[in-house]
Amino acid sequence: MSTAVLLIAHGSRRAEANQDLVEVADRLRETGEFEFVVPSYLELAEPSIPDGARQCVELGASEVRMLPYFLSAGSHVTRDLERFRNDLAAEFPAVSFKLCPPLGLHPLMLEIVRDRLRED
Amino acid sequence: MSTAVLLIAHGSRRAEANQDLVEVADRLRETGEFEFVVPSYLELAEPSIPDGARQCVELGASEVRMLPYFLSAGSHVTRDLERFRNDLAAEFPAVSFKLCPPLGLHPLMLEIVRDRLRED
Repeated sequence: MSTAVLLIAHGSRRAEANQDLVEVADRLRETGEFEFVVPSYLELAEPSIPDGARQCVELGASEVRMLPYFLSAGSHVTRDLERFRNDLAAEFPAVSFKLCPPLGLHPLMLEIVRDRLRED
Repeated sequence: MSTAVLLIAHGSRRAEANQDLVEVADRLRETGEFEFVVPSYLELAEPSIPDGARQCVELGASEVRMLPYFLSAGSHVTRDLERFRNDLAAEFPAVSFKLCPPLGLHPLMLEIVRDRLRED
């Protein structure tokens, strides 16, 4: 099984905010854990979620793990992402699309906060 | 020196997104590292940044560390936060106000991503 990660950020008019996701994708790719890592955006930036997912399929992925790079994914965003997932599953029936939890209140988030508070 | 942490999120019309910051504040308070921990919001939710900072001062803080709970703080947000910091420093000259870096691309963010990708 060839697994791709589709990272999903909200998307911004600010290039540097979108660039952050590209940087996360680069770092994740460097771990060598997943065959393919593709960044995508819910809106305001390219590639869109469907375009990013199609890239994953064209690269040869049989499984695509969709990861919302959101501190908090509300019901509106979650509904949008589920709709994208269902549409992609219908378009590519041979590929498994899985929607992962957002970053959310992961315990390590507290460690990041504590670290930033200590910085000069 | 009595140190307070003023956590700052963007603020949302969704109560559960704002509640996330309250939860982070509770967890940080539980570590016992800082005398006072107060959540605040740039917009759309209460308390505002100045009101949260005044709470810190009224509680007795001689230093307030302002922590932007943002994945990415663009120039617009950074400018707003610096303005709040300067206004507060002028209002309370005996108190030290320090603006910390946002969550940003902290190395642990990659660990959170990897962990969420492994979840079923």
